[in-house]
This record gives sequence, structure tokens and C-alpha cells, in this order.
Amino acid sequence: MEYQRDENDIEIEGGEMADDKEFLRGPLLVRNRKNTTSQIAIVGANSCPIESLDYEILENELFKQDWRSRKKVEIFQYVFLKWTLALLIGLSTGLVAFLNNLGVENIAGFKLLLTNNLMLKDKYYQAFAAFAGCNIVLAIAAAALCAYIAPAAAGSGIPEVKAYLNGIDAPSILAPATLFVKIFGSIFGVGAGFVVGKEGPMVHTGACIANFLGQGGSRKYHLTWRWLRYFKNDRDRRDLVTCGAAAGVAAAFRAPVGGVLFALEEAASWWRSALLWRTFFTTAVVAVVLRGFIEFCRSGKCGLFGKGGLIMFDVNSANANYSTLDLIAVIFLGVVGGILGSFYNFCIDKVLRAYSIINEKGPIFKVLLVMVISLLTSCCSFGLPWLSQCIPCPPQLAELCPTAGRSGNYKNFQCPPGHYNDLASLFFNTNDDAIRNLLTSRVEKEFHISTLLVFFVAIYWLGIVTYGTAVPSGLFIPVILAGASYGRLVGNMLDDLSDLDVGLFALLGAASFLGGTMRMTVSLCVILLELTNDLLMLPPMMLVLLISKTVADTFNKGVYDQIVKMKGLPYMEAHAEPYMRQLVASDVVSGPLMTFSGVEKVGNILYVLKVTGHNGFPVIDEPPYSEAPELCGLVMRSHLLVLLKGKTFTKQKVMTGSMIVNRFRAHDFAKAGSGKGVKLEDLDISEEEMEMYVDLHPITNTSPYTVIETMSLAKAAVLFRELGLRHMCVVPKKTGRPPIVGILTRHDFMPEHILGLYPHLHHYE
Amino acid sequence: MEYQRDENDIEIEGGEMADDKEFLRGPLLVRNRKNTTSQIAIVGANSCPIESLDYEILENELFKQDWRSRKKVEIFQYVFLKWTLALLIGLSTGLVAFLNNLGVENIAGFKLLLTNNLMLKDKYYQAFAAFAGCNIVLAIAAAALCAYIAPAAAGSGIPEVKAYLNGIDAPSILAPATLFVKIFGSIFGVGAGFVVGKEGPMVHTGACIANFLGQGGSRKYHLTWRWLRYFKNDRDRRDLVTCGAAAGVAAAFRAPVGGVLFALEEAASWWRSALLWRTFFTTAVVAVVLRGFIEFCRSGKCGLFGKGGLIMFDVNSANANYSTLDLIAVIFLGVVGGILGSFYNFCIDKVLRAYSIINEKGPIFKVLLVMVISLLTSCCSFGLPWLSQCIPCPPQLAELCPTAGRSGNYKNFQCPPGHYNDLASLFFNTNDDAIRNLLTSRVEKEFHISTLLVFFVAIYWLGIVTYGTAVPSGLFIPVILAGASYGRLVGNMLDDLSDLDVGLFALLGAASFLGGTMRMTVSLCVILLELTNDLLMLPPMMLVLLISKTVADTFNKGVYDQIVKMKGLPYMEAHAEPYMRQLVASDVVSGPLMTFSGVEKVGNILYVLKVTGHNGFPVIDEPPYSEAPELCGLVMRSHLLVLLKGKTFTKQKVMTGSMIVNRFRAHDFAKAGSGKGVKLEDLDISEEEMEMYVDLHPITNTSPYTVIETMSLAKAAVLFRELGLRHMCVVPKKTGRPPIVGILTRHDFMPEHILGLYPHLHHYE
Repeated sequence: MEYQRDENDIEIEGGEMADDKEFLRGPLLVRNRKNTTSQIAIVGANSCPIESLDYEILENELFKQDWRSRKKVEIFQYVFLKWTLALLIGLSTGLVAFLNNLGVENIAGFKLLLTNNLMLKDKYYQAFAAFAGCNIVLAIAAAALCAYIAPAAAGSGIPEVKAYLNGIDAPSILAPATLFVKIFGSIFGVGAGFVVGKEGPMVHTGACIANFLGQGGSRKYHLTWRWLRYFKNDRDRRDLVTCGAAAGVAAAFRAPVGGVLFALEEAASWWRSALLWRTFFTTAVVAVVLRGFIEFCRSGKCGLFGKGGLIMFDVNSANANYSTLDLIAVIFLGVVGGILGSFYNFCIDKVLRAYSIINEKGPIFKVLLVMVISLLTSCCSFGLPWLSQCIPCPPQLAELCPTAGRSGNYKNFQCPPGHYNDLASLFFNTNDDAIRNLLTSRVEKEFHISTLLVFFVAIYWLGIVTYGTAVPSGLFIPVILAGASYGRLVGNMLDDLSDLDVGLFALLGAASFLGGTMRMTVSLCVILLELTNDLLMLPPMMLVLLISKTVADTFNKGVYDQIVKMKGLPYMEAHAEPYMRQLVASDVVSGPLMTFSGVEKVGNILYVLKVTGHNGFPVIDEPPYSEAPELCGLVMRSHLLVLLKGKTFTKQKVMTGSMIVNRFRAHDFAKAGSGKGVKLEDLDISEEEMEMYVDLHPITNTSPYTVIETMSLAKAAVLFRELGLRHMCVVPKKTGRPPIVGILTRHDFMPEHILGLYPHLHHYE
Repeated sequence: MEYQRDENDIEIEGGEMADDKEFLRGPLLVRNRKNTTSQIAIVGANSCPIESLDYEILENELFKQDWRSRKKVEIFQYVFLKWTLALLIGLSTGLVAFLNNLGVENIAGFKLLLTNNLMLKDKYYQAFAAFAGCNIVLAIAAAALCAYIAPAAAGSGIPEVKAYLNGIDAPSILAPATLFVKIFGSIFGVGAGFVVGKEGPMVHTGACIANFLGQGGSRKYHLTWRWLRYFKNDRDRRDLVTCGAAAGVAAAFRAPVGGVLFALEEAASWWRSALLWRTFFTTAVVAVVLRGFIEFCRSGKCGLFGKGGLIMFDVNSANANYSTLDLIAVIFLGVVGGILGSFYNFCIDKVLRAYSIINEKGPIFKVLLVMVISLLTSCCSFGLPWLSQCIPCPPQLAELCPTAGRSGNYKNFQCPPGHYNDLASLFFNTNDDAIRNLLTSRVEKEFHISTLLVFFVAIYWLGIVTYGTAVPSGLFIPVILAGASYGRLVGNMLDDLSDLDVGLFALLGAASFLGGTMRMTVSLCVILLELTNDLLMLPPMMLVLLISKTVADTFNKGVYDQIVKMKGLPYMEAHAEPYMRQLVASDVVSGPLMTFSGVEKVGNILYVLKVTGHNGFPVIDEPPYSEAPELCGLVMRSHLLVLLKGKTFTKQKVMTGSMIVNRFRAHDFAKAGSGKGVKLEDLDISEEEMEMYVDLHPITNTSPYTVIETMSLAKAAVLFRELGLRHMCVVPKKTGRPPIVGILTRHDFMPEHILGLYPHLHHYE
């Protein structure tokens, strides 16, 4: 008989019960295991307790009644408000994006103008002092905001938003303080000349705005409105935050379709067709708002806000014809870009781990670290251009050469009059302008190979060491900068072999780096198309993205996934791991499991709430309320707290459902915004009340999702993930045992937990 | 007490059991209801029996063993093959799209050349005879193929593909015969001058190709390969068909990103991030293949294959600046476009219903109907241009005027030399060329208002009456034609008010019609952008799409949804209907429910398989195999048939699991392609064997998804739909009753069934 009997397998043959003791563990609840995975994760640059979000439709008596009594006008109110909120998210995100650009352009413009003028007067030391001084002051401002007010605002924010949309909540991820710091920290950080982008922060900002609007008003400030109560649940908030994230990308890149796709491909874990349309509407609003502001600024009312404002790189002028030989160059570009991109991820991970040790020591160390990096960046930006040779100004230029004003791209630097320094044109500029320079076609601008090499190496490493400091810092722009300089470098080297313009090579290089680090495909493709307004480059861009992603995937995970994992956020993957097929659901259930009776003593409930951190408790009806013990349902911690606060207790152990149904309304139990709601400390229960009883039936979700204990863990994980659950009840196969074996939560599906319990499964990974 | 007790609600108060008899129905299985929804639907132009697809992970002993024994090399084989198949789908779809274009361009080119030359010689009657004759011959060819070989190939095919991806299978939807007829029928149909597109048929073709490749080889033709066995399940086939549908759109419009989005927004019901990438790869391959062929044809080796080949409308030349006043015009365009679009849907529905009566009478009536429509189309195309006035040829044209060759756009028609007929330029052309003419900017081409009006009205109605005849007919091109002429008409009328070019008005008009009929958003936006290569039109295009979709949604459903419903395909919507909240799962379970024992008599199984059409049967273990009756799992009809064919029977009622495990291999039970597999008639069981027993445990799925009978129907529907189930077990709340109440299938969630049982719920709709 070839069939090998597995230890954890049940098989009944010839009527004989096989050795299933190991597996079924008799009629006892599973109490011998404890889930030791951390309930704390790093959000931004700070450790926070985390919670799961719950997307299940809770069906208890109170909610059911509320549903059934909903009138058509209330459904209309809900739909109307949903779209109004989408509109508001679009408007606010567009406005913030514009203010961000206005701030950065004016601050950086003033700084560059000042320094450039001093340089033109040959006052090199003063110029450096002014440059580095401005940078460090701005850097300290950004770092202080981050370190002292909202540490959650540090970093890109995309990993946190991604985790939130996967169902992981921490009070600080989308808090108003985070929003405030993200907006101003990003302006100061980008203005300080760091190699950071504003795209990640914009996504986070959009998500924060959406969450703020979805709070359902504020009782503290008397800003409540009856209509807003519909949004007091995790499902609707998730939808709003998805719209916010899409609006953020749309605003950062002026790429409305790209924003929708980014939300779909990278940010969101659950997606519905209806959401596609609402997200699309939000990003359309953003596009219209931005267009309006740009029209407004065209008349010169926005200070130093130049054409460098909202990035939009027109490369239309270049020749987009390519031959088969060019495709080979493109493939080479993609392969090397993939390798460099995955190495970028590797370095980011190492640097982040090193920084987290420094950041842990306290806010002042965070600020000091930022100061060091700022000084390093200033030295590079100011020092490296000295390596470059001076180039005579090309004749017949539309622009002034060397540059006198703010936004020109022919920086004189140390060169004699009539000459310019091409490395300074890249370094001594805002990041957006540097990208624009790199993407211009050869006809308009030529860079030396050495210039590109120096710039590429410096930007590659500066980008890596800057991420992870306590400033809001996006990853898109550093990666695009490094990728574009790499692409242009390759284009310059393959000059004799390829007819493709170096500007297009730079674009493809940027695509290869983005594919190699972020591992997105369709959304990056569309974002780059919308940025460069050149559809003819679509086929080679697709090719480069596919190749670089494939190559990079063989080395490590995408940068956001990697950061999510490093920060300890318990992210549920869409697919089940192979080793999950070797286990069944009851193998990973962890105890001790606390259950309540249908009518429970108040003291017991309080005790259980105090000693465990669990959020869902099975309610079991026992005789005389039923013939045999049976699972009545699941009750939530937050609902218990509201119920206890209401003090609808009885001296006798009797069902008082109708009393409670009359006493409370459904929205008393609606989920409060993250970090709000009744807390255990708010309760004031007397000794006498401790001995009284409370009927849990009206607030018990009578139809929790259940799986049988013999279901494979892989199948249970698919159910858990597809439905976005927080709790999943595991029920026994045999009758005559307690009606519930345990509860599976997100943490029980984490590899650390499973492989900790079953180390021999490591080889299936 | 305000709390109203609902009839279908259970509530226990004060320990007393409320009147739940109505609801719990005692310990009996539900046998008093029958699901009368039809198991037959119209596919193409024919009625077929339909089945559900099953995306559940079946966990029986055989399959579990197969999983556990899978080696790393086998996982690699699977992944490698998955990508190879995606590549093959891309290559084949690209090739077919090219052949389709080559065929249409040459056939239509020959026809137009012949007619045009006769017209230039003033031989009007011969010209009409040649024109109408060619058309009717081609039409008969297309109709005969459709009517006699594969009726499923008629129509667009998108509704059928959409239904397949929602989990509805009919053997003919994606059969090889359908593929064959779809390819050639589409060439003849478009060549015959019908107002039909090749886009819907291309989507269907792509899906058919994907399904063909995913069959897992063919035993009949000895084309089996061990690796292909991994694809013998509905999940992997669904993924392939999704890729195929995306490849179809990508090939039809040369819009790779649009293809991915189309599959995502309109076609697919389930989506995973991993699929996004594979779909993107497939469409990239299509784009590369098409580009290669076009390069090849540029050298003139493709006969009459002109620039009219693969559509790509460059409108870049037009001025895309627009003011606020233009936006008002755009809004007006969107509103009216939405109304006209939804009216289009309304008419399509009526016409389809009328035609289905004719089509039912037999193939010859189908052909006759096509002949009538063909004659009508010929008369319109040939007759209406006589209404138009002759226009003198503009001087300094690059093109010849009047047109002498095939692809020119200045048709002389009845006009004197040196003049052309602008209505003939639209009518007397291929549909692609007509669209291109409509989208050109005013500078290049001017149409009279009367010309546009006549063309718009004629095309609008011709499009409506042509769809539903027995030819492969896409809806995109008719809608774009009508929309573009409507847009250009509006643009001409608003000439004094708006600076926007009429070509751009035509584009926006096409967008408004597409939004009004198809109700897609992002995908249409991207498809139109890729078609016209003009990103600057993105914001107004988004606006127009949003407005027209919103307006049209107030009247009726999207055209594909409407056709799916009209054809009787039991489509599972993503959201639960409001009335489902008033019911619980056990309210709609329909009987009689057939169950098997763990070890069952062969005769009983055969009897049950004969008398019911069910596909899943609960297996219940009874004493002595268990202490009390308990649900062992679910067994599939197809697995039972394979097991019975293997004849592993015993005389005694004993468990013989290991015998069966040794006798069979997992892939014996793999799901055969649609319409294949063991049939009941194939079994040859003797009288003696009828009395023997067979052990069902090894093929029983021991972890079917279960819901408790008191779960609201809405919640159950979400579970059913999100996981793509075919069967869902409803278990009782109380112990001591039979362990299963019933099985829910797709048909039990259909409004006809539910509202038939509970007519009073109609007012919740």
C-alpha cells in the first residue's frame, strides 16, 4: 500500500478509527498553544499596537432590525453621500497637491535663486553656506514635525496605506495629526533638496483625507450629522480610503487613469467593479481641479511656480520609431534595470533596519540623523558638480545660458561666462526639473557619459540612505531619477548601435527601475504614459516593465511588500502558501479560547475583557436555553463595552432581548473611528452590578462564517482573505463535543506562527 | 414594545421558544419547494442546456494526496506552462486579428473597387447589382456558417464570455466549431458591409482560443501531454479565458492596456492581482505580433490591405485646447449621448426579442433574415448618398479627388468630374474608414450638417436592426459610428459657440455613446485614448463618460448585462439585492434533496443520478460509521460517474478507501472540458453489481463551504459569489436534526426563483 499516512490526517478504513488522537484532541478546546506573533508594528517611524479591520456583515438582532426598517430615502441618502464624499476627497486632494507644489516650487526656487546668484558672483563659500543652511533648516523643520508630532508620517506611507487596505488598522496610520505632518513635512522635505518624492506622501495624504471625511463626524466638536452614520463601518471607510489613495497618485502625477490603476494593482486588497467607477470619478475631479489651478498660475500669480510645477514631461518631440535591433537594447536595459532595482530594494531593507535602531533611541536622534543626511545631500549636490568640465553654451538657444533666473537649466556654477556645467544642471535643481532634463531628446540637450555616471551613482545611493529617515519621503522620484540617468547612460553608450533617442532610453530606464523596485506593471505603464504623453512608446515600455519585473522577482519581493513585512504588519497575501496545504484549520487555532453563555454574568464578562486582548468571543447557548450546547454566534468586544456601559442588567439569569432592543439603537454599536469608541477604563460597574446578568443575544452576530476543523488551512485562508474577515469560527467535525473548536484570526495565518508550530514545514516554502 | 416580530425571524425571549415553526420546519428536509428557474439559456442564436462552473478547491482524499505529493519540479512545470499558454494565446489572437483584417480589407476593398469603377463609368444599375450582389453573397456565407455549423457564434459574443467568466458554462460557448465560425463569419459579415464590428467577435475568438488551449489536450487525437493535466480544472481555465478576452480587445483596437482593463471591468467576475500581470503579458504579445505584421504589410505584400487596416485614428493634429464654455458643450453632449445610448439599448432589446421568434423557426429563417437585412443595408448605403449634394473637390489635395482607387475618401458617386459626394464618403466605405473620416479635423474634411444627420439616423437604426441576426456582430463599431456622427453633428451645430474642433467633438460623441450603451468607464477611456493617441483629451473624455453613464444608468442596464439577462443566463451579480436581507438561507433552499450514505448501494446511486439533474450530493455518515448522523461532505456527479465506471464495488457494506485510492489517480477525476467526460449512458452496470456497495469517502469533498440556515440570504450570496461556488451547504442551527438542510446553487439566488417564492418582496426591489 503506497498511501502514506500523515500524522495530521484523518482516514477511516474498514470501519476502524485510525490514530486520530493526535489530531482530534478529544472533546477539549484547544488550550495548549499560544499565538506569539506580535500585536505591535512599526507605523512610519514609531511602534504602535495594531488591530484588524472587520469587513464581515454582522447580523445581530439590532442590526437586522435597522436594515429591515431602512427606507428608500435612506438608501438614496447613502448613495448621494457616497458620491459627495468622493467629490470632496477629489477636491481636497487636488487642493493639497497644488499647495504642495506651490510650496515646494517657491521654497526651492528661492533657495536655488539665492545660491545661483551668489555663484554667479563667484562667492562660492557663501553660496554653499546659503545652500546647505537653507537645506538643513528645512530638514530640521520636517524632521521635528515628524519626530515630535506624528512619527507615523515618516516615510512613504504607501506601505501603511496598503496595510490599512488589507485590513490592518493602527490609530495613527490615518490620524489627522499624520495628515497635517504629511502635508507640511513633505513640502519642507522636498524643499530641503532631499532625494525624495512627493508621490508616496500624496497617496498617504489622500488616504488620510478620505479617512477624516469618513469618520462620521465628531461628537467632540459637535460636528455630527445623521447621514454620516452610514459610514461608521470598516467597509465604507475602506472604499473611501481606496478612493483617497487613487486621488493621491492622480494628484502627484496628474495621471487620473494611472491613479485608478495604482489603487487597483498595488494599494487595494479587495476590489469591486462599482469601486472602479467611484475611484475614476474621484481622480477625474482631481484632474479638473489641478487643471484649474494651473490655468490660474499661468498668469504668473503663483510666485516662483514655474513650468516645473506639476510634473508632466512631454517627450513627444523625440522620434519614436524603433527597429528590431533597438528591441535587443531594450531587453538588455530591462534585465540590468531589474537587477539594479532589486538590489535597490535589498539596500533599502538593510538601511531601514539600521535606521530603526537609531530612530528607537528617541526623537532627538531622529532629527540628528536627518541633519546628517541633509548635510551629505548638500555636499553631494554642491561638491560633485566640480568634477565636471565646463561646456560652451550652445548657440541659438531659446533659454538664457548660463542661467540667470530660477528655473533655467544651464547652470553656470564654477564655469567662466558663456559656459555651463551639465552636472550642475542635474544636481543643482529640483528633482522634477532634473527628471525633465534627463528625458529631453539629444537634440535639445547633451550630457557627458561621465556626468551621467556620477549622477547615477550619487542619486542611487542618496535615494537609499534618505529613505527611512524621519521625513515624509516618496520612493517614486528617487527611483525615476536613478532609472532615467541609468537609461540615458546606456543610451549614450549604445549610441552607435541604436537609433533610439537617448531621451527615450532615459524613459525606458526609468520604467525598468520602477519595474525592478515596485513590481507594478499596468499601473506603472499608464502612469508613465500619462507623464510623458507618448503612446507610441507603449510596446517597448511594456516589454521593459515585464522583463525588469520578472528578473527582479527572482531575487526578492517588491519594495512596498518588503517594507510591510519589515515593519511587522500582518499582511494577508492573496494566495495561500504551499505549506498551508499540509495543515488543517484546527492545527493552527491558538488558545485559550474564552466563551460566553447566552446570558452571562457581568463580572465574568469584565474579567474576560480585562485578561485577554481578544476582539471576538463565541456565545454558546446551554440548557435550559437549548437542548444541547450550541454555537449561538460571535460577540464583538466593542459591542460588549457599549452594552455594559448601557447597564441593562437583570438580577436573574433570563433573556431580556426586547429590553435591550428598546434601550439601544443600531448606530450606538456602529464602529467608531480608529482609536475612538468606549474603552474598558470608561466603564464604571459597581460590585453589586458585577453579580447581575446581561443578555448577549441581541448583540450576537448569529451567522459568523464557520469552517469545519478538517478543512485544509489553505482553503480556510482563501475564505478568510476573499471575504476580508476578522474572525473565523472553527467548528468540530464530530457531534457531542463543544460546538466550537476555536477562532482563527489574521495572526493565525502568519508564517511566523504556523512555521513556529510546525518547523518541519519550512522545506515546503 | 415597538420591536415587530417578523415572520421569518427567530427570536428567543424569556426562555420561551417563539413561533419558529414557520421557519425551522421541524426536523424534516425541505421538500416542499422546487426551483423552477430554467436550466436552458440562449447562447448565440441557439438554446442550450447550461451548467455552473465550480471554482471551489475540492478536498477529497485522492486530491489531497495528489497535492501533498507534488514536487517542486511540478510546480515549476505548472508555472512555466501557465506563461507559455499566455504567450500562445497572445500569438494566436494576434495572428487571427491580422488575418481577419487582411480578409476584410481585401474582400471589402475588391467590392468597393469594383463598384466604384462602375460608378465612375456611370453604370449605376450594374454598380448597385455588383454592390448588393457581393454583399448578399457574403451575408449568406456568414449566415449559413452561423445557422448550420455553430449557432453559438452569432452575435457579439461578449455577453457569452461574460457569463462564462461568471461561472456559467454551456458546451457550445467556447467550442472549436464556434471559434471556426466566429473567425470566418466575422470576416464575411464585416466584408458584407453590415453595420457590425469585429471587436466583440475578436473577444469571443480570443476566449475560444484560450479555452481550446486549456482543454488539457485531446485523447481522441492522441494529443495528450502530462503537463497539460494541471489545467484540467475550472479555475485555471477561467484565468486563461480572461487572458483570451483581454487579448481579443487588445487585438481589435490595438489597445493593449485597454484590453487588460476591459477584461477587468467588463468581462471578469473574479480578479486577482497575479492575473493582472499575466493578462498584461498576453496583450503585450498581441501588440508586438500586430506591429510585426503591419511592418510586413507596409511593403505592399498584403493586397488591398491599406492604411485602413488595423484601426488607429490619429487625431493628434487637431487643437486640443478647450475653455470653460467648451465644457458646457461637452456636458450637453454627454447628457444627450447618455439618453440616446440607453435608448439604443432599449431598442436592441426589443429587436432581439422579435428576432428570437424568427430565429427559433429554423436555420433557413435565420439565413433569410440576414438576407433581408443585407438588402436593407445595401439600399441604404447605395441609395441615401443620392440625397446629398455634390461638392467641388478642394484644391491642393494630397489625395486623388474624386477617388479612383480603393481606399480614397472622395467618392465621386453620382457627381460630375471634379466633384465628390460627402455622404458617399461615409456610406460607401468600410466602417473603419468612415470612423476615421468622422474623426478628422475640420481643416482636413468638412461635412454638411444634413449629411451628418442622414448618416447618423441611418447608422443608428441599421446598427440596431443588424444586431441579433445570425452573423458574428460586434457592437463597438456601430456605436462608435453613430456616436461619432452625432458628436460631429453637435460640433457643427455649436460651431459659433465653441472653439473645439469638430473632430474632437466626434471623438467625445463616440465616447458618450459608448458610455451610454456599454456603461464602462476606465476601460473605454483607455481604449479611446489608445485608438486616438491623444492624451490631452483625457479630462473631457472622462467627464463625458461619467455623465453619459450616469444619465443612462437611470433608464436601464448596460447593453451586455441586458443581453445576458434576456438570454436567460443566470448571472450572479456582485452585490446582494435589498430583498435578500429579508430572507435567510433556508428560505430559498429547494428540494427534493438527495443524500448518499458514506458507503452506498450502486443501484441507489444510479437511480438518483438518473432521476435528478443535480451535480452535488451530500454524503452523510451514519452509525455504525459514526456516533450520530453527520455530514461527511459533498460528492460531485462527475466524480461518481468515474467511480462507477471503475467498478470498485464490494458485496458487503464496508469501507474500501485504500482500494479506491490505489485503483484511481487524482487526474482521473480532473474536470474534463465542457461537454466531455463520462456520461451516464457510458456506464454498463450489471444487475448483480447494482446490489453491491461502493465507498464514497475517497471522492467526497470533506470541507464544503457551509452556512447556517439562519444566515441572511444577502450574506450567503456574498459568500457564494466572492468564492465562486457551485454548491453551498446549508446546515441546521439546532442539533438533533439531519445534518444538512439543503444545498444552495446559483439558481437559488436568481430573482425569478426568490420573488416567485416570496412575491411580497417585490416592493423591496
